[in-house]
Amino acid sequence: MTSPIKLAIVGVGKIVYDQHLPAISANPDFTLVATASRNNTIDNVPSFPTIEAMLEAHPEIDAVSLCMPPQYRYAAARKALAAGKHVFMEKPPGATLSEVADLDAYAAEQGVSLFASWHSRYAPGVQPAKSHLAANAPTSMHVIWKEDVRQWHPNQDWIWQAGGLGVFDPGINALSIVTEILPSAVFLTKAALEFPENRDAPIAADLHFQNADAVKVHAEFDWRQTGKQSWDIVVTTVQGELRLADGGARLWINGAEQPLEKEAEYPSLYQRFAALIRAGQSDVDVSPLRHVADAFMLGRRKVVEAFHD
Amino acid sequence: MTSPIKLAIVGVGKIVYDQHLPAISANPDFTLVATASRNNTIDNVPSFPTIEAMLEAHPEIDAVSLCMPPQYRYAAARKALAAGKHVFMEKPPGATLSEVADLDAYAAEQGVSLFASWHSRYAPGVQPAKSHLAANAPTSMHVIWKEDVRQWHPNQDWIWQAGGLGVFDPGINALSIVTEILPSAVFLTKAALEFPENRDAPIAADLHFQNADAVKVHAEFDWRQTGKQSWDIVVTTVQGELRLADGGARLWINGAEQPLEKEAEYPSLYQRFAALIRAGQSDVDVSPLRHVADAFMLGRRKVVEAFHD
Repeated sequence: MTSPIKLAIVGVGKIVYDQHLPAISANPDFTLVATASRNNTIDNVPSFPTIEAMLEAHPEIDAVSLCMPPQYRYAAARKALAAGKHVFMEKPPGATLSEVADLDAYAAEQGVSLFASWHSRYAPGVQPAKSHLAANAPTSMHVIWKEDVRQWHPNQDWIWQAGGLGVFDPGINALSIVTEILPSAVFLTKAALEFPENRDAPIAADLHFQNADAVKVHAEFDWRQTGKQSWDIVVTTVQGELRLADGGARLWINGAEQPLEKEAEYPSLYQRFAALIRAGQSDVDVSPLRHVADAFMLGRRKVVEAFHD
Repeated sequence: MTSPIKLAIVGVGKIVYDQHLPAISANPDFTLVATASRNNTIDNVPSFPTIEAMLEAHPEIDAVSLCMPPQYRYAAARKALAAGKHVFMEKPPGATLSEVADLDAYAAEQGVSLFASWHSRYAPGVQPAKSHLAANAPTSMHVIWKEDVRQWHPNQDWIWQAGGLGVFDPGINALSIVTEILPSAVFLTKAALEFPENRDAPIAADLHFQNADAVKVHAEFDWRQTGKQSWDIVVTTVQGELRLADGGARLWINGAEQPLEKEAEYPSLYQRFAALIRAGQSDVDVSPLRHVADAFMLGRRKVVEAFHD
């Protein structure tokens, strides 16, 4: 039996307390040996203000999970890779596509594993939906990702800064599912992005995708949704209709709800990370982030009323 | 001796008359057999209103040059590749990165050559500059690409539409040189894009790049330049200074102008395309377009005064 992978976390915040820690604690493949964070610590785990200090004090670290905002991911990832550590990156894997390409090449050069994680791909309905669409060709898809930013990202200033992605921060979860379940790639043909007049990131986006097989995908992202929240994907197939709801946690095929495994997105991510490390492999699929970059490049900008938290 | 490659051109406009036709005429590897274009024709060459009509009437076509605006490139490229033709794409290779990735995969599947061309990389000073920087590490680079849009793109509405790229249409030429001559990749860390209040594409951009070796690149693109036009790249190296001017047509090293070959960007592109076809290879480097997408995604938007042709 192999010994546990000595893991460190960099960037301790809400997602770490809510998701990473329970997943790591429950996984015998990992043991948490240190954290680095400017503001937060984890009880009974050695804490450091910087990744440099942490790596110097704990040379036994095998792997690092990077959970800071994407604008700061690259520098930390380069340092961890330079020290020969395997790297897990929260989504999105970077602030630019070019830096992710650089990290991908550098991880290969260093002979370590790099994992660009997309947690929504591990929602319980996603693999069953993928299997169904492989056998029943989709003709169109409607993605509705509408949530209340005040509830899910209260006072998170970084998300509204240039590079913070705005409504694409949740929207990229939908795109990570779309790119996973579709049998062939789609690309953007038309997009409109709504920017609040006092913010540098969009609060809503309307996206039209297509592909050579003429599958049409329409995605609507909106952060101004109050009341019922929507994270739904409805697919018309040659044979009927497939519907993923609650971000992939529930699945209907032709109106019949399908029995699914229990939700285990982050536990699955850490199982995948351990498997990548044991196999000496990387998994860096940039397609969700590439669609976001395409939307910013191709999209028409509309200025809308100011948003205040 | 191999017979000439039977070439067709799709999208006949200014760049075709100015650059493609002279380059093709002078190259014995190619013979021009047909064109497809909504508005324009070429004397003594069979012309068709659509690529479909052209491919049907001239099944002997081996290869196609796509010279329409980038928003229309994908559909034509898919049709040409589906018909088993080799494809040359004017820059930029598409309106989105995702569609270029799709074309790249599809060309491989079809067993034909796809060439995403970057004409500025064939400016006479570029390869000598690249050799010099391989031997003399750069520490910083300043890119100044400032021209008068009224002179170079009079009344080209498509360039101002969403997806038309605005000032990045010339700026991507600079980025194609930067990515060619730098010994290691850089990526964007900060950007500001200026959008005229009546346009959907930027008229100016200020870009800061960096890399793991801490090489800093500052690029300024501006379409409001009257008087002297600037297409200059100034590089500080460990050993002195390298300066490319006139879009790569002139080169100084430590103040001494270097003797260069005569300008032959498009003739070189067609030599390269013929070589790729003969060798059964593709050349699809998206890094210049990826930097542009990154700039739209990461960049802060500023609305500036309206622009009228």
